[in-house]
Amino acid sequence: MAESPITARTQDFASWYQDVVLQGDMAEPAEIVKGCMVIKANGYAVWELLQRELDDRFKATGHQNMYFPLLIPQSFMHKEAEHVEGFSPELAVVTMAGGKQLEEPYVIRPTSETIIGHFFAKWIKSWRDLPMLVNQWANIIRWELRTRMFLRTTEFLWQEGHTAHSTHEEAAQEVFRMLDVYAEVAEDVMAMPVIKGLKTQSEKFAGALQTYSIEAMMQNGFALQSGTSHDLGQNFGKAFNVQFQSKEGQLDYVWQTSWGVSTRLVGGLIMSHSDDKGLVLPPKVAPIKAVLVPIYKKKTKVSMKVDPNPSTVGQPVTISGTVMVLPDEEQDEKARVLEVAHRIAKEVDAKVDDREDITPGAKFFHWERRGVPVVLELGPRDLASGSIVLKRRDTGVKEVIPQSEVAAKLPAVLAAMQQSMYDVGKQRLKANTVLANSIEEVESLLKDVTAEKGGGKFVMAHLKDDPRCDARIKEFKATIRCIPLVDEYDGPGKCLVTGEPVDRRVVIAKAY
Amino acid sequence: MAESPITARTQDFASWYQDVVLQGDMAEPAEIVKGCMVIKANGYAVWELLQRELDDRFKATGHQNMYFPLLIPQSFMHKEAEHVEGFSPELAVVTMAGGKQLEEPYVIRPTSETIIGHFFAKWIKSWRDLPMLVNQWANIIRWELRTRMFLRTTEFLWQEGHTAHSTHEEAAQEVFRMLDVYAEVAEDVMAMPVIKGLKTQSEKFAGALQTYSIEAMMQNGFALQSGTSHDLGQNFGKAFNVQFQSKEGQLDYVWQTSWGVSTRLVGGLIMSHSDDKGLVLPPKVAPIKAVLVPIYKKKTKVSMKVDPNPSTVGQPVTISGTVMVLPDEEQDEKARVLEVAHRIAKEVDAKVDDREDITPGAKFFHWERRGVPVVLELGPRDLASGSIVLKRRDTGVKEVIPQSEVAAKLPAVLAAMQQSMYDVGKQRLKANTVLANSIEEVESLLKDVTAEKGGGKFVMAHLKDDPRCDARIKEFKATIRCIPLVDEYDGPGKCLVTGEPVDRRVVIAKAY
Repeated sequence: MAESPITARTQDFASWYQDVVLQGDMAEPAEIVKGCMVIKANGYAVWELLQRELDDRFKATGHQNMYFPLLIPQSFMHKEAEHVEGFSPELAVVTMAGGKQLEEPYVIRPTSETIIGHFFAKWIKSWRDLPMLVNQWANIIRWELRTRMFLRTTEFLWQEGHTAHSTHEEAAQEVFRMLDVYAEVAEDVMAMPVIKGLKTQSEKFAGALQTYSIEAMMQNGFALQSGTSHDLGQNFGKAFNVQFQSKEGQLDYVWQTSWGVSTRLVGGLIMSHSDDKGLVLPPKVAPIKAVLVPIYKKKTKVSMKVDPNPSTVGQPVTISGTVMVLPDEEQDEKARVLEVAHRIAKEVDAKVDDREDITPGAKFFHWERRGVPVVLELGPRDLASGSIVLKRRDTGVKEVIPQSEVAAKLPAVLAAMQQSMYDVGKQRLKANTVLANSIEEVESLLKDVTAEKGGGKFVMAHLKDDPRCDARIKEFKATIRCIPLVDEYDGPGKCLVTGEPVDRRVVIAKAY
Repeated sequence: MAESPITARTQDFASWYQDVVLQGDMAEPAEIVKGCMVIKANGYAVWELLQRELDDRFKATGHQNMYFPLLIPQSFMHKEAEHVEGFSPELAVVTMAGGKQLEEPYVIRPTSETIIGHFFAKWIKSWRDLPMLVNQWANIIRWELRTRMFLRTTEFLWQEGHTAHSTHEEAAQEVFRMLDVYAEVAEDVMAMPVIKGLKTQSEKFAGALQTYSIEAMMQNGFALQSGTSHDLGQNFGKAFNVQFQSKEGQLDYVWQTSWGVSTRLVGGLIMSHSDDKGLVLPPKVAPIKAVLVPIYKKKTKVSMKVDPNPSTVGQPVTISGTVMVLPDEEQDEKARVLEVAHRIAKEVDAKVDDREDITPGAKFFHWERRGVPVVLELGPRDLASGSIVLKRRDTGVKEVIPQSEVAAKLPAVLAAMQQSMYDVGKQRLKANTVLANSIEEVESLLKDVTAEKGGGKFVMAHLKDDPRCDARIKEFKATIRCIPLVDEYDGPGKCLVTGEPVDRRVVIAKAY
């Protein structure tokens, strides 16, 4: 694909994001399938790394992967009243198959609580079958009106954990355990600080008792809900008749949880770290950690001009033009640079970009846009001095170091970059979080904020978990993002809408 | 799930297979979604190992993973004439979405040549963009009439490679390269011998010039097409207008390939190796390589009988019953066994089955059905003698070895088992391959063969790649599986149907 300029963040954040995604080989819109995208090579490789980090943690906490059908009998959606109400508007429906009209249509899974509930009812008979800890990696379809690559697409990839327990207490522990796993991956792996909190009743998952989420702040100050963990209570247990015999011999409905993160995380990653030069990836999720660009003279084009004066026939001719580099010497330089380049690259597990017919400048540009954390440069002068140039993608700082030190230095630079990217994000979150003590203040803080212009804030205010409060905030095209689990502010106060006492401030923001 | 008996292979091979799949925690039918299954924990873990083996090889051969939409505009299917004819009867169609009737329906991908062709046309402009080497891991729907878990299901998981090249020669090399990758994974990883060959024109992929496959023999002598690699020629290039400018400046259509393996491989694995006791997994695809079952005395139930004669009140009573083991002593034995068990398990990366309330016998049974390659037993007598019992799942042979040697011995046993399972399969293939020199002989060799009763053969006969030959063989409910790439038999001969000369024998078999 031809490379085009990237819009500056300050000019139009939304266009900047689209440019970074396209130029970073992350994704492109699949305009022929409504609201869908193609996840391209770099984007998919990042997703694979995230999957590995998540999956290792799911397995370490005792979960097993399974796979359930894509298609769900339409009637299943109706078994849990809130669930069908929440998801009905977004369903894609298969009405024909094998050349025939189906007697009962299938919906493409918008989430799998219903079909998994059906199987839990078959599998769970006794307390000995509990807890049941299942995870699924799958694609999902929700017919969304407004879409944006990675952040909200009609089809997306995700994982959905589904667990069943014998007590509400144990289920609640699971809800928090997985919320913690998500927060850890966001912060330690993606270098993306998050706030853990409870969603309001208006914003919870359709069918849950409670939904908890991690909320991150993008560079335009918008919030991104990056993962959710639901306490489903006995709602689906009752809807699908998932009953077990307790140790005491009594029949009871199981207590369930579900939790998920999706390719949306990749969008969060991009919006958290990238800059006006393109994608910036934290080392832990960078498919290529370091690229080495060797620099050597291009094949010299020798232009020769022979005096065409016919009177010189038989006489010595004058040849003028550029100095001709001997092919041998030229090959020598290239060979020497490449030899050292490959040796160093092998030592430090870097990729050598030895493509022909592409200038070093174009190569730097190429890897910069793809977010490679470190680019190493090695030219003839470096050979002579025994040094190499190391450039960090996040700061753009170049450092000349001895070749003998690069193997020791590179892991330290990558670790420092990972930490520094987190710190920058944490600082941004802090700098753009403000307290508001009246509804007018909330409104004024969010008034001029748009996804394009940025300027978004996390506004901390005392509000009750009451639909009236959610509705009031929606008037400002914002939402209550969550009630933080940890109160970092001033404790109890009076709800700005209802006047009732509440125990802490909530997070209000415009959001994706 | 309650454990039930497994039908013997000789009694009914089809029921045996179903029992092994269910009892091995591999999958179960999802009866509420036509022809679908739930892939359960052990089955999905095997699939993950296969994915890793395949994906590493795809990446090593220069392919990049991407992800394309699940839904394909129906009109795309019609752009390649043979393709639409082949796939139309199997399509699932989405006609409603977001609460509305769609103007143009979408089909759920039955394979992705069409939608990927669309994007290749956008991405490929010049010879510099070639080769384009893409792979996708995805779910697929084909509305099948007769389904069988793993082997043929309405929905299945697979990978589909899609590549574009500037010359037919290079595309053909790719077709064979990936066929070789499949054969290597089948033989070296799955211990499942295969025959590489060309499908007849009647049996090729809808839209390809040529299809190559790997064919394996199941224990009932049925063939299983286990992977395919297609030379698509310029068919999809022309249908989707994928043109590139050659080095010489001319416009030409790209030459494409596609290739895929699916969760069907898991079915092949089960049918190749398992026995009447349940699943048998080759070590390289066994999620758990070894389990250690510790053996110690159960908590002794002390029953006491007190003489109830009222005349004894105030007199010494007689207590009779089983000898009471002192709790301390009992705990000591258990503690000592578990201590050594955990130490050894850690050394050899085995799982300790220290579940309470389950007898060692039930544990052996449990892991046997799940195909764990090696089970180690450690009891009080082994503690005393410093030995441990090692049992191989494939042969059932038990060996008593010194505890000090288990760390060295286990990898050797696993390697030997992997090789031996391949050898057994190779021997079966050889023993059940027969030559036929007349159509009557072919018929008679296949006459009494059924999937249930077994007795299947690979019948090698001279036949032409001609629809008349395919049709003749279909009369025996068999098919020409392939024209082997390597002729291991007697070279040229006369086609048994057309009388025309052909250069080698083809493989004829009943197949899944």
